[in-house]
Amino acid sequence: MAHDFDPGFPRRFHTLVRNYPDGDVYPVDAFRLEWGPVFHRGRLDGSARIVVLGQDPATHETIARRILVGEAGQRIQGFLARLGITTSYVMINTFLYSVYGQGGGEKHKDDPLIAKYRNQWLDKLIVGQSVEAVVTLGRLADQAFQAWRATPKGQSSGVFQQAVTHPTYPESSSASGQTTKAEAMAKMLDNWNVGLQALAPHITQPDAPRPLELYGTALEDSDLAPIPEADLPAGLPPWMRSLKAWASRAATGSAALPTATDEQKDEAKRATIVVAVPTKERPWHPPA
Amino acid sequence: MAHDFDPGFPRRFHTLVRNYPDGDVYPVDAFRLEWGPVFHRGRLDGSARIVVLGQDPATHETIARRILVGEAGQRIQGFLARLGITTSYVMINTFLYSVYGQGGGEKHKDDPLIAKYRNQWLDKLIVGQSVEAVVTLGRLADQAFQAWRATPKGQSSGVFQQAVTHPTYPESSSASGQTTKAEAMAKMLDNWNVGLQALAPHITQPDAPRPLELYGTALEDSDLAPIPEADLPAGLPPWMRSLKAWASRAATGSAALPTATDEQKDEAKRATIVVAVPTKERPWHPPA
Repeated sequence: MAHDFDPGFPRRFHTLVRNYPDGDVYPVDAFRLEWGPVFHRGRLDGSARIVVLGQDPATHETIARRILVGEAGQRIQGFLARLGITTSYVMINTFLYSVYGQGGGEKHKDDPLIAKYRNQWLDKLIVGQSVEAVVTLGRLADQAFQAWRATPKGQSSGVFQQAVTHPTYPESSSASGQTTKAEAMAKMLDNWNVGLQALAPHITQPDAPRPLELYGTALEDSDLAPIPEADLPAGLPPWMRSLKAWASRAATGSAALPTATDEQKDEAKRATIVVAVPTKERPWHPPA
Repeated sequence: MAHDFDPGFPRRFHTLVRNYPDGDVYPVDAFRLEWGPVFHRGRLDGSARIVVLGQDPATHETIARRILVGEAGQRIQGFLARLGITTSYVMINTFLYSVYGQGGGEKHKDDPLIAKYRNQWLDKLIVGQSVEAVVTLGRLADQAFQAWRATPKGQSSGVFQQAVTHPTYPESSSASGQTTKAEAMAKMLDNWNVGLQALAPHITQPDAPRPLELYGTALEDSDLAPIPEADLPAGLPPWMRSLKAWASRAATGSAALPTATDEQKDEAKRATIVVAVPTKERPWHPPA
């Protein structure tokens, strides 16, 4: 069976990828510098019709080295599919590194050097390209886009932008107890329906044309679209694109013992990602 | 600071990379199919002067998605440096997947479909290319090369091959208690010195010409050469090329508790890789 893969960075991105900002731009108390930057997912070959601007990479993204590969990614993939976009997209994040701690992203959202590098990506992805719309996920991404829009190149670009609610909003807002997950989900999907209707007229060359259908009040299984194999580096196993969680930050070894102090646990947790093949995706167990 | 990176697979390798063998070729009881294949490290752009044929990828290689990135890789990197080869090499393995259990590699070393795919790689890397020598690491790699040499393309190739002892031989042979690590190291370096002398005359265009110097009876720190940043995917943190172990197979969570059965531990261990930033490479601790 043939396995598609992401062939890597085209030459026109090499200088940009080579010169990513380090700890002198992203402070180590607010970003997980130690795992390196994660740049993108999707088409860098000029075929993208939609640019998605997300927030920051998490554990799964850190191991797969592509952004939005977990459930949030599958939600966005489903959103794009409703617009007929199944391959012609490219996604980057507001931040190259995972945000560490509460408010790290908020605190550094206007840092000029962070914006400067991100704007170079937006320039390259949008200016003079076939991109017809930009979708920003969440408030920080929206603000990041507005910052680009205020630059000379951003001002000269007529690209349409639609801000939508971040795909993990149902989980994050219900975790704080202010709302239920179902309520938050309905609210997000309402917002996404507004987004879909605003975006649809701008997508003139969809990959898979289809009449626009809106979301209901809950997310169905069919609303999640798988991450294409072609979006990940060669050889990554299929479960790295699955809905099951397979990467987590955890204290292990002696830091997991009851005798470990909170400080030792925090230290181990920051330093560690546990990668585990999901139970139902273990090929050494014959399928039931 | 600019960070070099591996730009990905050139077009002439795409079909080969896309069509890697799955569980129908590599049996799941002898190979860790679940982590996906790891293909190579080094130059695929035709600039390689030496092809290194190793054995199989381990935990670090599984996460970094490039072969020979740990201490064994640094030993080989140092070996190539003595021949003046600092960038013009490419490495592939005998097996695409980690060997699982005792004797898995031995048992399947002559499997025709495993050899068929590996031979396609050797064809592409050697035939009509600028490669001047092949270095095989260990017995299985030597046999894999001989199997290629027996094919029509292998027969028509005049490329020089030198078999050398596998770089982890000192550890593996002393672990069984038959020898000390120091004795095994001296034996390996003696073998490597024979290899260097045989190889040197074939390397007509070294990257960094230098008079041939042989190893002593022990490996010095200076005999380990760092894995170049340009060999790894973009954005991987520097500690993924360091000498410190940073990836291990371990039972975690409930499978690490004293109440876990051996079966539960084995299951968790097969399913899990723990990735931990080495203690001295944690950027959130200011340097002492």
